[in-house]
Amino acid sequence: MIKKIAVLTSGGDAPGMNNAVRAVVKHAQARGIEPFLVIEGYKGLVENNIVPASETNVDKEYRNGGTFIYSARLPEFADIKVREIAVKNLKDRGIEAVIVIGGDGSYMGAKKLTEMGINCIGIPGTIDNDISSSETTIGFDTALNTVVESVDRIRDTMRSHNRVAIVEVMGRHCPDLTVFGGIAARAEAVVTSENIFSTQDFVDVVKKTQEIGKRSVIIMVAELTYGIDGRPSLDEIAKEVEKQTGKVTRVSVLAHQQRGGTPTAMERVWATRMGVHAVELLTNGIGGRVVGNKGDEITDFEIMESFNMPRKSRKDLIDMTNKMNIIK
Amino acid sequence: MIKKIAVLTSGGDAPGMNNAVRAVVKHAQARGIEPFLVIEGYKGLVENNIVPASETNVDKEYRNGGTFIYSARLPEFADIKVREIAVKNLKDRGIEAVIVIGGDGSYMGAKKLTEMGINCIGIPGTIDNDISSSETTIGFDTALNTVVESVDRIRDTMRSHNRVAIVEVMGRHCPDLTVFGGIAARAEAVVTSENIFSTQDFVDVVKKTQEIGKRSVIIMVAELTYGIDGRPSLDEIAKEVEKQTGKVTRVSVLAHQQRGGTPTAMERVWATRMGVHAVELLTNGIGGRVVGNKGDEITDFEIMESFNMPRKSRKDLIDMTNKMNIIK
Amino acid sequence: MIKKIAVLTSGGDAPGMNNAVRAVVKHAQARGIEPFLVIEGYKGLVENNIVPASETNVDKEYRNGGTFIYSARLPEFADIKVREIAVKNLKDRGIEAVIVIGGDGSYMGAKKLTEMGINCIGIPGTIDNDISSSETTIGFDTALNTVVESVDRIRDTMRSHNRVAIVEVMGRHCPDLTVFGGIAARAEAVVTSENIFSTQDFVDVVKKTQEIGKRSVIIMVAELTYGIDGRPSLDEIAKEVEKQTGKVTRVSVLAHQQRGGTPTAMERVWATRMGVHAVELLTNGIGGRVVGNKGDEITDFEIMESFNMPRKSRKDLIDMTNKMNIIK
Amino acid sequence: MIKKIAVLTSGGDAPGMNNAVRAVVKHAQARGIEPFLVIEGYKGLVENNIVPASETNVDKEYRNGGTFIYSARLPEFADIKVREIAVKNLKDRGIEAVIVIGGDGSYMGAKKLTEMGINCIGIPGTIDNDISSSETTIGFDTALNTVVESVDRIRDTMRSHNRVAIVEVMGRHCPDLTVFGGIAARAEAVVTSENIFSTQDFVDVVKKTQEIGKRSVIIMVAELTYGIDGRPSLDEIAKEVEKQTGKVTRVSVLAHQQRGGTPTAMERVWATRMGVHAVELLTNGIGGRVVGNKGDEITDFEIMESFNMPRKSRKDLIDMTNKMNIIK
Repeated sequence: MIKKIAVLTSGGDAPGMNNAVRAVVKHAQARGIEPFLVIEGYKGLVENNIVPASETNVDKEYRNGGTFIYSARLPEFADIKVREIAVKNLKDRGIEAVIVIGGDGSYMGAKKLTEMGINCIGIPGTIDNDISSSETTIGFDTALNTVVESVDRIRDTMRSHNRVAIVEVMGRHCPDLTVFGGIAARAEAVVTSENIFSTQDFVDVVKKTQEIGKRSVIIMVAELTYGIDGRPSLDEIAKEVEKQTGKVTRVSVLAHQQRGGTPTAMERVWATRMGVHAVELLTNGIGGRVVGNKGDEITDFEIMESFNMPRKSRKDLIDMTNKMNIIK
Repeated sequence: MIKKIAVLTSGGDAPGMNNAVRAVVKHAQARGIEPFLVIEGYKGLVENNIVPASETNVDKEYRNGGTFIYSARLPEFADIKVREIAVKNLKDRGIEAVIVIGGDGSYMGAKKLTEMGINCIGIPGTIDNDISSSETTIGFDTALNTVVESVDRIRDTMRSHNRVAIVEVMGRHCPDLTVFGGIAARAEAVVTSENIFSTQDFVDVVKKTQEIGKRSVIIMVAELTYGIDGRPSLDEIAKEVEKQTGKVTRVSVLAHQQRGGTPTAMERVWATRMGVHAVELLTNGIGGRVVGNKGDEITDFEIMESFNMPRKSRKDLIDMTNKMNIIK
Repeated sequence: MIKKIAVLTSGGDAPGMNNAVRAVVKHAQARGIEPFLVIEGYKGLVENNIVPASETNVDKEYRNGGTFIYSARLPEFADIKVREIAVKNLKDRGIEAVIVIGGDGSYMGAKKLTEMGINCIGIPGTIDNDISSSETTIGFDTALNTVVESVDRIRDTMRSHNRVAIVEVMGRHCPDLTVFGGIAARAEAVVTSENIFSTQDFVDVVKKTQEIGKRSVIIMVAELTYGIDGRPSLDEIAKEVEKQTGKVTRVSVLAHQQRGGTPTAMERVWATRMGVHAVELLTNGIGGRVVGNKGDEITDFEIMESFNMPRKSRKDLIDMTNKMNIIK
Repeated sequence: MIKKIAVLTSGGDAPGMNNAVRAVVKHAQARGIEPFLVIEGYKGLVENNIVPASETNVDKEYRNGGTFIYSARLPEFADIKVREIAVKNLKDRGIEAVIVIGGDGSYMGAKKLTEMGINCIGIPGTIDNDISSSETTIGFDTALNTVVESVDRIRDTMRSHNRVAIVEVMGRHCPDLTVFGGIAARAEAVVTSENIFSTQDFVDVVKKTQEIGKRSVIIMVAELTYGIDGRPSLDEIAKEVEKQTGKVTRVSVLAHQQRGGTPTAMERVWATRMGVHAVELLTNGIGGRVVGNKGDEITDFEIMESFNMPRKSRKDLIDMTNKMNIIK
């Protein structure tokens, strides 16, 4: 059986990554496998920045956001020469397999390392929920709660002053933070790449709320939807809304605080279950797969297969929200 | 098409119930149906305590725990004569269907009302997650986070003072709050009806942690497991642990605060989606079913069918937790 | 004795305002005085938008941020003709006194109304803590916790990725949110109008942290300090920091979410004690004063006197922070 | 000038202790003094369990509850022979002074060590707020927020079900958690050693709420008030309330979770300011004093003087609360 494995985090950090790392370490130890931590993702593999997990106290990190083994970019990892250094570093230590916690972008490296003889398993770690092979990515639940708490707070002040807030939410390739956040915060409208609004659509939502006597209006918009591709910026839209409706209209960008924070309960549960499952796959000699969940079940798919899985449309949920929240 | 529906909450209150009520009201209005609120569950049906939803501001309740339309016990509802009064009260107002948000115990009433000509749809609302036809019940995610926050706090003080905490968690017929809470809080042991510990087992866990140099020990126990059926009470167990290990051992009962609190983001999302789905079923003339979820999908089952669905065992998760958290 | 009083909120909303309104209402009732709520501040006085408090459930609002009796701007209130309408509206209802919850800007109206025969008492309600006659303003403690939670989250991601965050914090005329927030979040530097940094100063702080091996850097800056008066914008500063240090540097603006949210425990305590004290003053026939606190004691000052009280310098606390947080 | 100091935490742990330790360490370093950490309080002094602070990362602990340098009981420290060992251990390392973070009980040791040539400064660290020489003790603000969050949650379920909760709150010798918690949670009654209720008084409060149509009733009681000194237990009281009023009445004990948790913003601010001030005193050759705050100012008093300062009565605040919260 396998004797030594390593774990790394790659791409944008996400709450819950530390719980996944901890689960890999603790379950490996329970299985009699020696776990190693790679510092700063693929960069640490190449720079041989690898430490025995027994030298750190992984228990201390279970409540902390971010990734305590750090993350970094390394585009050069696409180069086979660079990867060969990583493979050598691993083999020199007798490490036979690697668990990669990160987003889609990180899986290609895992696939290639697997082809080079280092079995790799991916675990979906990103706040964006943009990995088709898993219903939930590690980080999503915490980020979603952070978004909703922020919008709840914004609601308070908008209601007090009879104002409109246009709130920009993270989610580079996936609108789930915006859509689920909009449902939870009962946003008067949700706007994503699946339902692009014209400036007049924004105005019309606000006018509709004025007709039915609503004071506060929250419109949640997925990032990278406006201010590009010839579409006006949110600031321009806000100005037009203000002009046509007479209501003070503010743009709020929920920036980097969305990425951090103490992981929620379910975040830790999923991270732990996925980490354990990844170790189980490796102990069975299996590599080149990504872990995920389908409802209450843990799943795994071949990496290339996971890339080809279609993204779920949220059109139905968006329509549902945009209808029910501007009804008297 | 259906013109008037009512919604009630029954059984123990749960965070998210207000979001489900709100979704029923708002989606019904968006569909051109007039929604009514029944105050205090089946009791309100019988006492004719029913108000048009338009007279209340359901939007204001979306962040509040509990149920703003209240809940009450009415064992007499098993009597057909009592139910006939309820049916008459509904028919007098032209209300054709009722959505019942509550636990398993509430569904029998919904089934019987359906048989008497009032189409009913159940929505699983209980913090216990003890409804087999749905992976998630409304209230579970919030209660789970409350449990984990409390145990995190208890961890702080146990670690500071080198102590043991035995923590009793709610969940009358289902250990999920204990098991998932134990995973999230990295409890040194989780004990439920699926893995009854002897007093010596408790002692042995603590001794094991002493061997590997751990300071704090958290053992999470499902309520109604000890102090009944000839088993010792948790206080008796704590005394024995203290005697054999020399570590101060405290019992903490996480009581009623587990039931309340601002609903989490996903709580609100599920409550909203289930409320909308329940209205959709009724608009299609369907009754006698309970809504639920299977992963990201909303499901529904015939009520009797849902009663017969087997409860999921958590033995695997318990074993996983109890092994990995007392490893050096 | 006085028989009827009114309460209004003015200026920017702040968490705890609802608790102050509730305390005014409840304590007045306990004293046998009939309380009225003015909707939308001075605007409601002039538009005669005044309702008996007994018609609303003030208890329901004690956990909500914002002000449930709303706020609005009314610069015209400086005009005596406009104030005469307000006085007439009050006298027509037999209302003899008004409690004004708001910032410095609101007190001038309170002073002038007092001179016109309506005894007014001010309560300091603003997140900015910029009222010299009170150590704590209602809203400050909640906003401060919101700031610190956000910066804690930003810290997670900066540490994961070895980055610098320049965080802009609210506080128009008072740097307390920035200074106290910086202490609580152990910011590597705090910058306010009391200690303007040059661009090179920003660079030097980051270089210093690099020398001592720190990964994450948080620099907290009071709003309205940069991008005005010939000083570079924070984005320009970030670019220069990035250029000279090689560290990715991001600007985060903690916007409107700082204003809302469930009031903290002490917020509710101060709001309640100040509300009660304001009623007590009025029952003793006293007007033209503003309530505040000095440590654990509730105080009150004549309005003009309060305007002339010097603002406290935070230079010492800033220097303390800026030294101790970039030490190895 | 002084070259080496040590810091220890003693008595019950409290959130913010880690921030005080950090401030001592960082400010000492900024002042050119070498700081040491004593593990497990006075016990560590005697057992020579003392480590250079530079070997740990104090920054990592600023968000954690509890005390990362641990606490333990050592009654033997009253024995001069035991203290002489402590003094020897300190002198052997060249440590000239000690900062003691803890409750009243810890100060006697500090006083005696000072008399033996080791200058000591006390910092008030306890959730109970029971130190007369300081308006705020480190830990109080966080514990108060935990109490209020828990009671808010209990309120939700009591309101949903029309019930009474009798909530027992910590605070061995000081009712502030109960009194301030009761104000913040708008408890229908607050009961402490300053206003002992008879069983009938409990009943009467509930009856009064029934008269004015209130659903939920929360009565907050300081620990160690009932079930001792011939007074009935809270369970007995609850039974009588239930019997006379017909309302289901539950006792909730807010146990150990009150002690832990992430320190609030102001907790961290006070802990930091007090820690810095303690170091300043030592650098000026001053010992035998305890730090505290009076409003926004940091204060210090001679230890014996602090023992003799009278405890503040909360009778006025209790009366205020008990009147205003059962008014229609």
